[in-house]
Amino acid sequence: MSDLESIFHPKSIAIVGASPNPARVTNRFYLYPLLQFGYEGKIYPIHLTAREIAGLKVYPSIMDVPGPVDHVSCAIRADLTPQLMRQCVAKGVKLIQIYTSGFSETGQEKGIRLENEIAEIARRGNVRVLGPNCMGIYCPGSKIAYIDYFSKEGGNVGLLSQSGGNSMEVVQIGNSRGVYFSKVVSYGNACDINEAELLEYFTHDPQTKIIIGYIEGTRDGRRFINVLREATRAKPVIMLKGGTTEAGTKTAASHTGSLAGSNVIWESFFRQLGVMQVSDLEELIDLTLLFQHFKPVRGRKLGLVGSGGGASVLITDSCEKERLLIPPFPEEIRGRLREFMPEELDPGSIVHNPLDFSTSWPRPGVVPALLETTAKYDGIDFILIYFGLGPGIEERITKVIDPIIETRRNFSKPIAMVLRYNQAPQEGKLAVDLQRSCAAGGIPVFTSFDRAARAINRFVSYYEQRQS
Amino acid sequence: MSDLESIFHPKSIAIVGASPNPARVTNRFYLYPLLQFGYEGKIYPIHLTAREIAGLKVYPSIMDVPGPVDHVSCAIRADLTPQLMRQCVAKGVKLIQIYTSGFSETGQEKGIRLENEIAEIARRGNVRVLGPNCMGIYCPGSKIAYIDYFSKEGGNVGLLSQSGGNSMEVVQIGNSRGVYFSKVVSYGNACDINEAELLEYFTHDPQTKIIIGYIEGTRDGRRFINVLREATRAKPVIMLKGGTTEAGTKTAASHTGSLAGSNVIWESFFRQLGVMQVSDLEELIDLTLLFQHFKPVRGRKLGLVGSGGGASVLITDSCEKERLLIPPFPEEIRGRLREFMPEELDPGSIVHNPLDFSTSWPRPGVVPALLETTAKYDGIDFILIYFGLGPGIEERITKVIDPIIETRRNFSKPIAMVLRYNQAPQEGKLAVDLQRSCAAGGIPVFTSFDRAARAINRFVSYYEQRQS
Repeated sequence: MSDLESIFHPKSIAIVGASPNPARVTNRFYLYPLLQFGYEGKIYPIHLTAREIAGLKVYPSIMDVPGPVDHVSCAIRADLTPQLMRQCVAKGVKLIQIYTSGFSETGQEKGIRLENEIAEIARRGNVRVLGPNCMGIYCPGSKIAYIDYFSKEGGNVGLLSQSGGNSMEVVQIGNSRGVYFSKVVSYGNACDINEAELLEYFTHDPQTKIIIGYIEGTRDGRRFINVLREATRAKPVIMLKGGTTEAGTKTAASHTGSLAGSNVIWESFFRQLGVMQVSDLEELIDLTLLFQHFKPVRGRKLGLVGSGGGASVLITDSCEKERLLIPPFPEEIRGRLREFMPEELDPGSIVHNPLDFSTSWPRPGVVPALLETTAKYDGIDFILIYFGLGPGIEERITKVIDPIIETRRNFSKPIAMVLRYNQAPQEGKLAVDLQRSCAAGGIPVFTSFDRAARAINRFVSYYEQRQS
Repeated sequence: MSDLESIFHPKSIAIVGASPNPARVTNRFYLYPLLQFGYEGKIYPIHLTAREIAGLKVYPSIMDVPGPVDHVSCAIRADLTPQLMRQCVAKGVKLIQIYTSGFSETGQEKGIRLENEIAEIARRGNVRVLGPNCMGIYCPGSKIAYIDYFSKEGGNVGLLSQSGGNSMEVVQIGNSRGVYFSKVVSYGNACDINEAELLEYFTHDPQTKIIIGYIEGTRDGRRFINVLREATRAKPVIMLKGGTTEAGTKTAASHTGSLAGSNVIWESFFRQLGVMQVSDLEELIDLTLLFQHFKPVRGRKLGLVGSGGGASVLITDSCEKERLLIPPFPEEIRGRLREFMPEELDPGSIVHNPLDFSTSWPRPGVVPALLETTAKYDGIDFILIYFGLGPGIEERITKVIDPIIETRRNFSKPIAMVLRYNQAPQEGKLAVDLQRSCAAGGIPVFTSFDRAARAINRFVSYYEQRQS
């Protein structure tokens, strides 16, 4: 077991800078989420003068806390942090998580010196540091979170993120699409616990089946590469690298003090190691969804089954651009499909791949029958369904979703879906509900043809490369 | 004035296949939208036996209608269409719009022959045909539409679309983002009125300032190129070409019978003519928004002003990938910006480009002051603001939007926005409301960094190319 295991299971947490003012950052990010999640350990708000905050007894300093303190979360001024660090050492604190910024990322001598000082105190005093300039830990299993609206449900995805904001966005996107997390760590400037150690932890963590990350840079490239090599041998690793351009690299430096390094180098070593590098936060989740729902897929032949002529053209373009194959259905299969879309009921309909069921899908049983026929046909490795929401479609689509999910359950063939919707609030709500049902039924849902095609290509390529 | 002008101003419309059954396609797409839009001409439902539909007197055939009939919309069986065509000729109908499919797009001799027959009757009888296999005309000025939820508000964007479904999707995306249309024509198989004629019409239509289109192919490449050349000289032309891959081309052929042709050829002639080719429906609207809101921009230097460290890194990467410049602010400007983000209020904050105002934007007046300073600085051509919605952000963001819109009004500098949100229904609603307010205030809103950067690059490139 890794050293880090203990940071996910504190028995007590002190919150330095908790405040009688509910709007304060420290309350919002550290105190309230613990209460909201029902954290079962002890919570000690630390404030110089207050006596009670949110019904909890307050202590003027961590030194005044009667029992041991495992974790400290703080958002105090940068220049006061070294003093708190010394208290942590004295108190035998295991981990201090520092939200505050104003350290090495400023690029100024003062901040760099402060950060070095913290790291030095930590090393000598045997206290681990997360940050500074980070959000901390979200571990649903231990009922720890830094935002109260994160899902209480845990999952098998481990996320390391150098950016706190991006970690929040990934969790939100993920939760809304049915991705749940084993552990999420926002680690900021990484003056002690860093990307390499976290990656090593996730590699060996039995709760984590898929490792995803947002990183801006590393201070020890050699170690990171070694750890990454091990990680990719064990689990799918999906990474978004921030600071891939010249200007982006400068921004990354001022964000987390990272030496982002040349993008060409990052790209090439990601490729060599088999890391899937993505280009935005949504794509992190796009790919995660496929690994979460499907066993290895060993072919790139798609059956496209959906609604809309123009949509059929566009999804075909998207798929072929991503080197996916859309083989014509053989006569035998077309004949079987035609049984459910007879010329007299669907005049002018054409039974092809893509199979446009625009005119036939309101008839009960047609969509599942078409899907079943496609699922049974072994010339197809993967089925991609596509719908567009719109006024008047709600009832139709709601009726057809459960049968689709059942088809997915009854056949081992992977089925994914593209669900486009146009921002009307009622559509947004329906889309989220449908996405949730589909996710629960093992069907990943994408928001666009391009995103679906790109993710499927990378998913299939992952197994192609590991086979060869 | 083009021949086509009259098709947008019918004084009477007969709907062949209107039905006492409200769910029928013909009612849904042709009868109800006219009623809903308050079409001021005469509406004649045509049905063999019914006497009244939706309160309107019904006629057994168009021949029985007492007065003249300008337009006929129909969704009758393909093989019955020639007979209806002959009636149209006899009745002196100006335009027949045929929803029905089952013609040349089937690739079968029967369908091809039927379509040729229709075209022939039309030519000899002096009736214009829209379609077959199309949705028809949406012209808010004449209160004509084929979907009742399209906006009644008109605008200056002309859309020609070979696909009916895609036309509906573009209008929906557009309406929700503040894009309104002069005329929209879904023209399907184009057996008579085709892409070239429509493009020519839009080129000369004074109501149309921006021409956008979805096309799958052309049957007369030479004429189309000539018309396109004239169109691009007059107005911005933005096109999505469906069927850009081998499989996509086959799908397009079976969708609208189009000879899609080699993508390389299309791309190269679009480029030569100055047509902006986009890669999906959303991008059609992304680019349209910029042309709708901004005068020509003659530089690619961006000021990035927004919330979030990780977000700042990612938006910088997106912009630089699109060859946009993010120049560092000079000392003088940094000093002025710093006045609103003083070290004591925003410890650790760094005044750079991008300017991350995460910690300062809840303070009233800060965001407008930062924007104003950036807008006044002539080293920046364009300002891009970025926010992520999320629980707890609603109030903050709502407060800041009006001041941002005011800043946009007071300065001639273009201001656009990226508003990310994560599908929670309440966020979706807020996002749509904010988008609407921004659009009304002259601020285009994008859903992702990549989309914003790509659209801005293409918008700036458009004017660079016309300058040179």
